[in-house]
Amino acid sequence: MPRHDRFLRACRRQDVDCTPVWIMRQAGRYLKEYQDIRKAHSFLDMCKTPELAVEVTLQPIRRFELDAAIIFSDILLPLESMGIGLEFSDGEGPVLLNPLRTREDVKKMKGVDPEKDLGYVLQALEMTRNELNGIVPLIGFAGAPFTLASYAIEGGGSKNYLNTKAMMYSEPAAFHLLMEKLTDMVISYLNAQIKHGAQAVQVFDSWVGTLSLTDYREFVAPHMKRLFAALDPAVPHIHFAVGASHMVELVSSAGGDVIGIDWRTPLDEAWNKIGHDKAIQGNLDPALLFGSQEHLGASTEDILEQAANRDGHVFNLGHGVFPGTPVENVSFLVDLVHSKSRRS
Amino acid sequence: MPRHDRFLRACRRQDVDCTPVWIMRQAGRYLKEYQDIRKAHSFLDMCKTPELAVEVTLQPIRRFELDAAIIFSDILLPLESMGIGLEFSDGEGPVLLNPLRTREDVKKMKGVDPEKDLGYVLQALEMTRNELNGIVPLIGFAGAPFTLASYAIEGGGSKNYLNTKAMMYSEPAAFHLLMEKLTDMVISYLNAQIKHGAQAVQVFDSWVGTLSLTDYREFVAPHMKRLFAALDPAVPHIHFAVGASHMVELVSSAGGDVIGIDWRTPLDEAWNKIGHDKAIQGNLDPALLFGSQEHLGASTEDILEQAANRDGHVFNLGHGVFPGTPVENVSFLVDLVHSKSRRS
Repeated sequence: MPRHDRFLRACRRQDVDCTPVWIMRQAGRYLKEYQDIRKAHSFLDMCKTPELAVEVTLQPIRRFELDAAIIFSDILLPLESMGIGLEFSDGEGPVLLNPLRTREDVKKMKGVDPEKDLGYVLQALEMTRNELNGIVPLIGFAGAPFTLASYAIEGGGSKNYLNTKAMMYSEPAAFHLLMEKLTDMVISYLNAQIKHGAQAVQVFDSWVGTLSLTDYREFVAPHMKRLFAALDPAVPHIHFAVGASHMVELVSSAGGDVIGIDWRTPLDEAWNKIGHDKAIQGNLDPALLFGSQEHLGASTEDILEQAANRDGHVFNLGHGVFPGTPVENVSFLVDLVHSKSRRS
Repeated sequence: MPRHDRFLRACRRQDVDCTPVWIMRQAGRYLKEYQDIRKAHSFLDMCKTPELAVEVTLQPIRRFELDAAIIFSDILLPLESMGIGLEFSDGEGPVLLNPLRTREDVKKMKGVDPEKDLGYVLQALEMTRNELNGIVPLIGFAGAPFTLASYAIEGGGSKNYLNTKAMMYSEPAAFHLLMEKLTDMVISYLNAQIKHGAQAVQVFDSWVGTLSLTDYREFVAPHMKRLFAALDPAVPHIHFAVGASHMVELVSSAGGDVIGIDWRTPLDEAWNKIGHDKAIQGNLDPALLFGSQEHLGASTEDILEQAANRDGHVFNLGHGVFPGTPVENVSFLVDLVHSKSRRS
């Protein structure tokens, strides 16, 4: 089987020669060749310069036997296009300069024309597809509306999402309007990515795990359902929510062909809850890459045993790979997934 | 029924006239009378001066119809006694000055004699009991070994617990030794608190939700089982884990008469998983106190409906009350819990 086919076939629950693997944030700071480029350019410049984004996207594909590339970008870029200033300071994480707090703030948010406002991402996708030349497929992505809303309201990362929840609980109409605008944006942005070369798209709901089931049903699910229903069905849609083991079924029923899970839910248990008519992606704790290879290997094999070589498993971490991760352990992991899942 | 009895009877799953309620961090920054004292004293001074700790413990009891007091203190104080320097900077959270990274660091940790090292807490408990004069019972508490271990290893709060997990995954014997030492400390500390007046004790496992079930079973459960088995059975033991909805059963079977849950698991679902031979505590999202009273009221009633006036429900938040919480909403909540759960 060509290396190119493994990931897309698994997303569609077709049989494969071995379990495909890619790694969230595989293009990133743990790689020396990434840091070399980062030294000379700001993070935002790297995102906005297609040549640099392409190079960084390809780096992990050259180094490891990964089964997919994911475009180097950031989920917050479209917020900038919507009128919310964006800065990345080293070590501090993103800062949004004029966070949304009122209904008026939400009303003022601009719509996004991906071709015009985010053309640099679309161009990077086209160039990467060209460079990849069919070796592995290329994944596009966007942040999920709730995660983007919480960034926009909090003004950056958050521990408790108090401003976000205060808006939800005291101005629900304003919060829903924000979710609607973000959902519109994600739909047009991901469909543009597909048009410009993305062969699968992932929606990252990184912060939604802070919500109760009641809140997810009321404030998130309707928007996610609209989102996934409006995406071009020509490519697989991956729906990944972090810390959401309490609502795996809800997340799954909100949409997506492939459901991404983290390490908190055992993969077999999650797949039973989701149903085997969906593919599953996950779910190694990225912190395991900092441990011994013996322990990493045993944990990896445990996940593969839970998946039992059933069609529709895409191996991944349960969260992005951390800066400082030993590169030799990434290599060890990727090769182990392939060798231990080889179909006979 | 005397106000004093409600909480302890619910902990023991005995019938009550209405559902008891207390609030994690009820003695804290959201109260003006707390801030008035805090202006003149450092946080550590407040913890270490029994007169101040007593006063702050009593403040919320005077203001609200709460059914229990919890001693004002901090879970990190015993780490200081074990040889790890501790600082609280305003707005930054705690900083541990010489975090543990190696087996040698762990070996050097001192044992704790609560009477000698933490006498100020024990004295504050005795004085508070005296001042309370039987109005409401007094709760003592400690951090759980995993949460304390992660603070000690990371040197403060953490997002990803990378150093903690690196020790678990690469030096498991060192990590277990640390857990053993912390478990020894918690046992002697909580038993001393009970001896000096605590009428219930709560173990806070604030960070354990970052672990997979496999890791909880291997690195946490054996220590928690030893801990709860060694606590004086004369008073109820509350076991509270945050973000642990993926392992409610595991947490419960590790020990505790009352299992504290957060808002991520619906209370009825959690109670079914735990079994009705245990009491349950929770589980309102503290962020709901920032919303409208209409929404707060509906969310509170929803929890009470899930508990269905079954014996053994202690109403609480799913996490500590936040600074900035509108005090009138706390009052509204406490009174609503009582009025809506009144047994006929």
